[in-house]
Amino acid sequence: MALGAASAAPAGPEKVKIALCQLHVTADKPSNIAAARAAIKDAADAGAALVVLPEMWNCPYSNDSFPTYAEDFDELKSGGAPSVAALSEAAAAAGVTLIGGSVPERAGGKLYNTCCVFGPDGALLGRHRKVHLFDIDIPGKMTFKESLTLSPGDGPTVVDTPAGRLGVGICYDIRFPELAMLYARRGVQLIVYPGAFNTVTGPVHWELLAKARAVDNQLFVATCSPARNPDASYQAWGHSTVVGPFAEILATCDHEPTTIFAELDYGQVVERRTNMPLAQQRRADLYEVVDKTAA
Amino acid sequence: MALGAASAAPAGPEKVKIALCQLHVTADKPSNIAAARAAIKDAADAGAALVVLPEMWNCPYSNDSFPTYAEDFDELKSGGAPSVAALSEAAAAAGVTLIGGSVPERAGGKLYNTCCVFGPDGALLGRHRKVHLFDIDIPGKMTFKESLTLSPGDGPTVVDTPAGRLGVGICYDIRFPELAMLYARRGVQLIVYPGAFNTVTGPVHWELLAKARAVDNQLFVATCSPARNPDASYQAWGHSTVVGPFAEILATCDHEPTTIFAELDYGQVVERRTNMPLAQQRRADLYEVVDKTAA
Repeated sequence: MALGAASAAPAGPEKVKIALCQLHVTADKPSNIAAARAAIKDAADAGAALVVLPEMWNCPYSNDSFPTYAEDFDELKSGGAPSVAALSEAAAAAGVTLIGGSVPERAGGKLYNTCCVFGPDGALLGRHRKVHLFDIDIPGKMTFKESLTLSPGDGPTVVDTPAGRLGVGICYDIRFPELAMLYARRGVQLIVYPGAFNTVTGPVHWELLAKARAVDNQLFVATCSPARNPDASYQAWGHSTVVGPFAEILATCDHEPTTIFAELDYGQVVERRTNMPLAQQRRADLYEVVDKTAA
Repeated sequence: MALGAASAAPAGPEKVKIALCQLHVTADKPSNIAAARAAIKDAADAGAALVVLPEMWNCPYSNDSFPTYAEDFDELKSGGAPSVAALSEAAAAAGVTLIGGSVPERAGGKLYNTCCVFGPDGALLGRHRKVHLFDIDIPGKMTFKESLTLSPGDGPTVVDTPAGRLGVGICYDIRFPELAMLYARRGVQLIVYPGAFNTVTGPVHWELLAKARAVDNQLFVATCSPARNPDASYQAWGHSTVVGPFAEILATCDHEPTTIFAELDYGQVVERRTNMPLAQQRRADLYEVVDKTAA
């Protein structure tokens, strides 16, 4: 499918209060689960209808941890996937749409970095496996190779929820403009990126990339990071942020554990696209972004 | 042609000193030409090998002015294109590669917003006609419709120069990521955007877009604006800026008339792409940016 003008905005809420939970993540899985449950409840109590958790919120961000903390989602009912089960239960208890950050997933002998999306009844609405693995080597500053343990997902993830039509990317996925462009063409109103940038790339790229995806595609972007844990081997940048479709920052924070809130007015997506009709002004005679995964 | 990994870096200089001339533009064409000549000479005297002028540097930025100040480039030798002739002469006199900002061009009964690129011998190396016209309407804040007078160009512009392989965009062209992606795939080391953002979009988007194009494509970006002229109907944002391939700002300024300098180390393009091999990490199985203009 060639990507032309944006799809019509889906029927859905006009305004949504979003909460980003910048969780303190430790090596103790049960306490991470307890912290996530509490943050989801607190966010709902504060009026959020959409709650977002960070990337790899149930384990340390390291290749050593991913296999150990991984869960097989097929074992949800038998108790073998406590992190995912907790998300479903917490979403239902709080009555919120939940973008469950990510946890390591075990499936078919492989591991994935996977985000689950739950509805306010606790039903699993969608699942995104990180499609661009974080393999970088900035000598002396930051070297990481997720592909040592993880396998990539096989496609984009668009989920219709009571909190709008959402697209999901995980961390390094944000570096690929094509994914966001594809989401915009499918009518996504908000792209959520659970992510854990670091203290090398975070200061220079984290906010920049969120704003770039927002302004280029004229939609909302939310990035949700773990808090920085001085005891961890990987120092997360933090700075969870909500950006509007004109690249305006609606909410942000530093690297401490916190939950931040913003009201998303989806009417602004329509308004910005009316004022500056980029989708119609693209030069389809010169270039084209082709979505190879669309039906 | 499908856009895969970046083309091999062209043979060329390893380092280039660039100058961006943020000119004071008035309604007097001869004085604008004189100011451009002087700025080019001064930049060369200060060691620049590559000099950039702003968008519409020979006339006020208005639909009323474009037809009046337009030049037919075919009349270069007969004296009918004094702005363009001055650029050629100034480039040769100074011995610099010159990205001649833009001027209104008259051709075949149409008007274009056109950038000419000259070599150090004064030869015309390339010509870019703005491909995305600036038609926006932010009620009460900024309304402009270039398409009332101008016609769009018919393609991207890549020019091999003694100062590297350059891609050219003009102002609103920067809002379209596809153009920059296409340039990157063709081995462009530096994208130059003469532009005149305004005081509505400038503060929120000018630097953001330059940094976004740079970091997503891992190349240098230079934006060159006219200085703000309080007497003009259109208030240019100024803030001409040079950005490196990690989105780092190498030189910038406020809105006053000035010339800023930076040294471009093209080795950094290679280094950033080695450290973070985005081109190889793209998911060609999921999406593809197709360049419809490539041979």
